[in-house]
Amino acid sequence: MIQRAETATIQLAQLYAPIVDHMREVERVFDGELVCDLPFVADLCDTVRSYRGKMLRPALLLLSGQATGTLTDAHHTLAAVVEMVHMATLVHDDVLDRADERRRQPTVGAIAGNEAAVLLGDFLISHAYHLCSSLGDQYASRSVARATNIVCEGELLQNHFCKRLAIDEAEYFEMILRKTGALTGVACELGAWGSGAEADVVAALGQFGQKAGVAFQIVDDVLDIVGDSAKVGKTLGLDWTLGKMTLPIIHALTHASQDVAADIRASLDAPERAGRDQLRTWLEETGSIDYAVSVARAYTAQALAGLEVLPPSEAKSSLSAMAGFIVVRHF
Amino acid sequence: MIQRAETATIQLAQLYAPIVDHMREVERVFDGELVCDLPFVADLCDTVRSYRGKMLRPALLLLSGQATGTLTDAHHTLAAVVEMVHMATLVHDDVLDRADERRRQPTVGAIAGNEAAVLLGDFLISHAYHLCSSLGDQYASRSVARATNIVCEGELLQNHFCKRLAIDEAEYFEMILRKTGALTGVACELGAWGSGAEADVVAALGQFGQKAGVAFQIVDDVLDIVGDSAKVGKTLGLDWTLGKMTLPIIHALTHASQDVAADIRASLDAPERAGRDQLRTWLEETGSIDYAVSVARAYTAQALAGLEVLPPSEAKSSLSAMAGFIVVRHF
Repeated sequence: MIQRAETATIQLAQLYAPIVDHMREVERVFDGELVCDLPFVADLCDTVRSYRGKMLRPALLLLSGQATGTLTDAHHTLAAVVEMVHMATLVHDDVLDRADERRRQPTVGAIAGNEAAVLLGDFLISHAYHLCSSLGDQYASRSVARATNIVCEGELLQNHFCKRLAIDEAEYFEMILRKTGALTGVACELGAWGSGAEADVVAALGQFGQKAGVAFQIVDDVLDIVGDSAKVGKTLGLDWTLGKMTLPIIHALTHASQDVAADIRASLDAPERAGRDQLRTWLEETGSIDYAVSVARAYTAQALAGLEVLPPSEAKSSLSAMAGFIVVRHF
Repeated sequence: MIQRAETATIQLAQLYAPIVDHMREVERVFDGELVCDLPFVADLCDTVRSYRGKMLRPALLLLSGQATGTLTDAHHTLAAVVEMVHMATLVHDDVLDRADERRRQPTVGAIAGNEAAVLLGDFLISHAYHLCSSLGDQYASRSVARATNIVCEGELLQNHFCKRLAIDEAEYFEMILRKTGALTGVACELGAWGSGAEADVVAALGQFGQKAGVAFQIVDDVLDIVGDSAKVGKTLGLDWTLGKMTLPIIHALTHASQDVAADIRASLDAPERAGRDQLRTWLEETGSIDYAVSVARAYTAQALAGLEVLPPSEAKSSLSAMAGFIVVRHF
């Protein structure tokens, strides 16, 4: 399932080939929006810029735009907007998770305190909407805000489900569809919309993005348990420590032997009693890791079905390969 | 300076007379936007609704609209937007201040934990932008987002200034102009804009709102020290406990006798060493309370100058009286 990190990085660069110049333009728009006359805020903005990783969401937006038409300045703006929204969620996630590191850099909370991190997340989301409303049409602002409404619901659900042993798979999928699928969905949708695609194509791209986002989240949950922290680039095992109910754990609770299920239940209340290695062993024995990966693969297949409306193109191939990449990545 | 609470409430109801039906419409729009299919989120939204106090910002927006033209549905939407933004800042302020009560109700953090409160604040701000982008024109979305950019800067500044004894009055005014003046300013500006007022009138109303907001904030700071908690409707003395640098304290640090200034400095590091009564005594002796009130009065006078462009009307009289009301209120 898991390839070497270097291979994954090279592969992703290849997938971005059709949009490489546009990605630079997105970074320029992002940096142009995220300015502040207060030096300490500007410093915090630099910290946030260092979290910019593979920029998957902007890439999905641009590739969706290119696969359905011609990229314009509006695409660059929209791609910077979805990345800024994503950054805001990362900054607030770090507050909720009390995380000290992100992409091998100290978090905003570690540098300036959790209060500043709450406020910087607000500053980022405000700038995302500010940038989005620079476009001539309210459609994009309305779509982005609808998506962020849903992302917030997903995050609230995740927090609500914390350490709740009775959560079932349907509830988990509902949660990650909102938390992760809504933003990747709107990214692809707006990419196609910006190219003037027909409504059914816009909707199909939205479906592609949503399903790919769900697959991505499931793999993220799996990597939290079996990934290599150095390669993934963030502290792992946190989901477990924080009592987050993820697919492998939900599966194990209903499929493990009575004894193992009881051990997992007991450890959820006191995660220090079972480390990540112990959890991994339990979940591998129960087939819960393989199960979660197979579900991620199924979502990837559903995502790919959304691309069938598109004529062949280099951008379409990249979108298709990105969906496949999600389940082999380990960064 | 301070009137009885009952008198103040009656007075405010009188000022709202020209817009009373429109205020009900704003509440309807607000409630219509703040919906969620998740029952526990809907419950948290009900909690937030109970924080709705005097709705000063919607009232400023509607009165500005009526003083410059005719109120429309767009005014109701914009008024609900500024109130929702304000609610979001209250919810996040309560997280930063670790407050347990707001308007004699438990805070979101007290009910559902600080994590949920961070996320509910995000949910509110997202819905505010979502509602705003339902209007046909990007101008309002752009203006609201520009204002919230500035509000976040003000909040970051306040956090940055925490317990910094060297903060001077100019820095304090810069902070509250952003934190409080930006939102009241944009409320009045959008009220006039929604009525199709000329650019100079829109700008004048914006100035009125900004200055009135600054006066409001100074009085808020004063009430934190000398107000009656039951009448103000929130826990007081928190600014001091949390090391927030407010105008009376900044004034006292440079105008008190050497001994008293040293005592205030020492107490800022360990606020439990001097209670609110002791602080009040120090600040009254130094004339710092009277000074802050006189500055608030001066800002109110500057605010009123912004109204001079308007022809006489009931709405103009209410705006004028609201600015005066700010420095006599004690809720």
